[in-house]
Amino acid sequence: MEEAKETSKSALKKAEKQAKMATAKANKAAKQTSLPVVGGKKADDIIGITVSKTENFSQWYQEVVLKAELIEYYTEISGFFIMRPATMHIWNVIRKWFQEKIETLGVEETNFPMFLSSKSLEKEKDHVEGFAPELAWVTKAGDKDLEVPVAVRPTSEAVMYPYYSKWIRSHRDLPLRLNQWNSVVRWEAKQTTPFLRAREFLWQEGHTAHLTEALAGEEVLQILEFYAGVYEELLAVPVVRGRKTEAEKFAGGYYTTTVEGYIPSNGRGIQGATSHCLGQNFSKMFDITVEDPSDRGKHINVWQNSWGLSTRVIGVMVMIHGDDKGLVLPPRIAKIQAILIPVGLTAKMTAEEKENHLKQVDDLFAVLKKGGIRTDVDTREGYTPAWKFNDWELKGVPLRLEFGPKDAAKEVVSYARRDTGEKGTIPISELTTKAAELLETIQKDLYNKADAAYKAHRIQITNWDEVVPALDAKNVVIIPSCLVPECEDKIKELTKGHSDETADTPEGQKAPSMGMKSLCIPFEQPEGLVKGETKCLNPECERLAEEWCMFGRSY
Amino acid sequence: MEEAKETSKSALKKAEKQAKMATAKANKAAKQTSLPVVGGKKADDIIGITVSKTENFSQWYQEVVLKAELIEYYTEISGFFIMRPATMHIWNVIRKWFQEKIETLGVEETNFPMFLSSKSLEKEKDHVEGFAPELAWVTKAGDKDLEVPVAVRPTSEAVMYPYYSKWIRSHRDLPLRLNQWNSVVRWEAKQTTPFLRAREFLWQEGHTAHLTEALAGEEVLQILEFYAGVYEELLAVPVVRGRKTEAEKFAGGYYTTTVEGYIPSNGRGIQGATSHCLGQNFSKMFDITVEDPSDRGKHINVWQNSWGLSTRVIGVMVMIHGDDKGLVLPPRIAKIQAILIPVGLTAKMTAEEKENHLKQVDDLFAVLKKGGIRTDVDTREGYTPAWKFNDWELKGVPLRLEFGPKDAAKEVVSYARRDTGEKGTIPISELTTKAAELLETIQKDLYNKADAAYKAHRIQITNWDEVVPALDAKNVVIIPSCLVPECEDKIKELTKGHSDETADTPEGQKAPSMGMKSLCIPFEQPEGLVKGETKCLNPECERLAEEWCMFGRSY
Repeated sequence: MEEAKETSKSALKKAEKQAKMATAKANKAAKQTSLPVVGGKKADDIIGITVSKTENFSQWYQEVVLKAELIEYYTEISGFFIMRPATMHIWNVIRKWFQEKIETLGVEETNFPMFLSSKSLEKEKDHVEGFAPELAWVTKAGDKDLEVPVAVRPTSEAVMYPYYSKWIRSHRDLPLRLNQWNSVVRWEAKQTTPFLRAREFLWQEGHTAHLTEALAGEEVLQILEFYAGVYEELLAVPVVRGRKTEAEKFAGGYYTTTVEGYIPSNGRGIQGATSHCLGQNFSKMFDITVEDPSDRGKHINVWQNSWGLSTRVIGVMVMIHGDDKGLVLPPRIAKIQAILIPVGLTAKMTAEEKENHLKQVDDLFAVLKKGGIRTDVDTREGYTPAWKFNDWELKGVPLRLEFGPKDAAKEVVSYARRDTGEKGTIPISELTTKAAELLETIQKDLYNKADAAYKAHRIQITNWDEVVPALDAKNVVIIPSCLVPECEDKIKELTKGHSDETADTPEGQKAPSMGMKSLCIPFEQPEGLVKGETKCLNPECERLAEEWCMFGRSY
Repeated sequence: MEEAKETSKSALKKAEKQAKMATAKANKAAKQTSLPVVGGKKADDIIGITVSKTENFSQWYQEVVLKAELIEYYTEISGFFIMRPATMHIWNVIRKWFQEKIETLGVEETNFPMFLSSKSLEKEKDHVEGFAPELAWVTKAGDKDLEVPVAVRPTSEAVMYPYYSKWIRSHRDLPLRLNQWNSVVRWEAKQTTPFLRAREFLWQEGHTAHLTEALAGEEVLQILEFYAGVYEELLAVPVVRGRKTEAEKFAGGYYTTTVEGYIPSNGRGIQGATSHCLGQNFSKMFDITVEDPSDRGKHINVWQNSWGLSTRVIGVMVMIHGDDKGLVLPPRIAKIQAILIPVGLTAKMTAEEKENHLKQVDDLFAVLKKGGIRTDVDTREGYTPAWKFNDWELKGVPLRLEFGPKDAAKEVVSYARRDTGEKGTIPISELTTKAAELLETIQKDLYNKADAAYKAHRIQITNWDEVVPALDAKNVVIIPSCLVPECEDKIKELTKGHSDETADTPEGQKAPSMGMKSLCIPFEQPEGLVKGETKCLNPECERLAEEWCMFGRSY
């Protein structure tokens, strides 16, 4: 569940206006970029990313996702984005990986309708309250009003659970584990941002039912570990595993587990993906019961989970790894892992010499492909090598391979790493093994760099006065907390607009810096909190601390 | 594009009422079925399909899709269906197969928003007229009215093409080939039927742009051949390839090609999947142009195609292969190709003997799995072998393998084919090779049987008086036609309600038999039509025939 919504009309209008301005700006920039000059003369003057990641992070992000051709703004309706092939490739890698994982748990695929009746939605009170402000309502079909309006699903608990009640008749039907890959609509009043907050997004949603709390709880953690795997193993993004506080848990659920990421550029926390135990709340409302196998005649409500991972993961990855040249892709999810570019073809060379050289390039390309490296070769005419370098750097290809007559003479291929810029040569005889090693090194280095940044900016604090300075220094903080929702509200208020009055928001406007909210109660608890003794760190709170809780400014 | 719609309020109400009645009936039947009696005593009294395919085809179909657990009726909102795991498995096999095919053509994946602005929709006049009556309109978000209502996509031409205009800047950007897998909403006023006609359905939609008509036309046919492959190679369903007449082509398109199927049980034709050439209609409206590479300075509008294949294919497969015992699945798309069932375990056997026997069953199971046969083993307790046989027959598993002490003594496994009921034994030493052969034979035999039925009921007619009797004898007819839309309207009228006044409709009600409509102009044209001489077969038409055209009563 997202935080409370600013649903006032003025906020909506403002957000839409800002989005339009950002779009117009970005589109204009894109228009300039994607018109390479043909003929070789002026091809070097590519307009790449026009701002630095450090100086204007939000504009940098908008330019990267647009110019690297990950997304396109859907200008017809604000808050929606088009996922381009570069994005769909990454999403499909994640989908395949995660699908294989959940199949090992016996999860099956299903597809429920996208519409929801208000009757079903209203069954769980907290759930409907959580989602009602964002529901898109279909009220007309053709030119006729519907007798009963229907909502587009914001999530499918209320769509699916009436059927769980029908399908689950005996404890032998448990566990029931279904997952669907679809899109959901949450008509956010807040500012939207590509991948991170959109009015429609792609995700998977798993919905399972179990006989006992223990069995449900076991699965919640198995799924959370898969989510951590998507970030850590595929996207090279470190996450902190933990539990959401009551204030931040899923609307209508029992408890929520989460993987939380961190964006070094602005010091914000970001929710990565959540795996919820719904407890018996929904099964009571939707009447999902089985006969207790150990006590004939007694009916018990099943224990349910739901869990979801969305295209948000891609936005987190872009924000963490990208640089001033554009996107930086971890090799495991890159469609093109290595780009091979012929260089050093001078005007002095004869046509035959050029042809021979390009023949060698083709041979290298074939060797790389055969060796399992996802390679493309750039033999486009009318572009200088330098222009091509920029173009592929912008698009984040992890490894550039150059091959010119001088390389040919030495029987090597020159390379440049996208992440570090490091250059070197590889003997042709070892091309695929060395390239594969380099790719694996890049994958690991990207993770390690991000992990080091996260670790350095996750600060344990026991003195309230250090909190805001720590936030301003782009940290998230781990503090002793009573975990009570009202206390969290107070903490948010106390940390709002304190110092850096013109902090850079993700939307590119200047605004008072935001208050911090709780991100998670990390499973790995630091030492030093004495139950019944340590106080909640909030100076206006009288309660004792229950656990260390991670707070931060956040998306 | 579907045929003209009955959009009157009374038709809508009637349809909804019928759907509810059918659902209630089917649900009741399902409730009875899915409560197996435990304990072994009464387990044989399974209630399978309660009507015969021949006597009440429409009820038979509804029971099969429900009881074989392909779909569930979404009773919350009429006209929607839940796709259960058995369906999603088939759809995923098709998706993977088709995806690999289009990747060889260089088609990339994309994902556009599900909503459409009326501004974009209205750009192509015929297109908006074709889809407007079925559009679902979102008019509210939360409790606020939207300033401008948005429609849920019924197809994505008008969603995507504004961006084709932006992305296509030069002939070097062509061909642009994008495909997306999603669901679309067409709020049908007509009676809905699982898979065949639903208000939301899963499909893929490809949208491509080309420099010339010839290049576009080449792709149209490549895709059509892939669609034929889905039917013929995966689903064992024969189809006729052809072109739609003007009256039946896609709204706003240039020409439509199609694969047309045939349902022997009621003699109806059914549109299988369509591949459209849109010509330059949309590119003119959406301003998608490039500079002519052979005539600098001259701008030409690109040639566009769109093509789609939906979950309808699964309904066609069910209707063609199923029988009175339930579903019959072609092995290539069956999740479980072979079900292994231990038999002959009598009360006289010792516990050790039983255990030994089940150990052997487990070994056979391991051998089959290792041999690449998608096998499951049914060792459920409390069910008789006969009950299990019925259960797996209902679900359409192509091959049943039985293993009892007598089989063990002879070192064989007994088998029964789902399609023919044929029984036999396989030596254990040859288990996987023979099982694989049997599965391949089943696949081929299913196709051949359906193909023979289609061929026998595709009748070439040159005498008008033979038309209606041929339709009543469950044929589709191939007749000389002028191909003019008004003539088709007349033909529909002339063939309506002629003889069999209580024909069985797909919705289970009795109604006058429907008129025939044109299905396609087959690419394989029979001999005997002399241009400028042969008359259109419609007795009230004065025009000359242009081509042989296939007509039939249809879905």
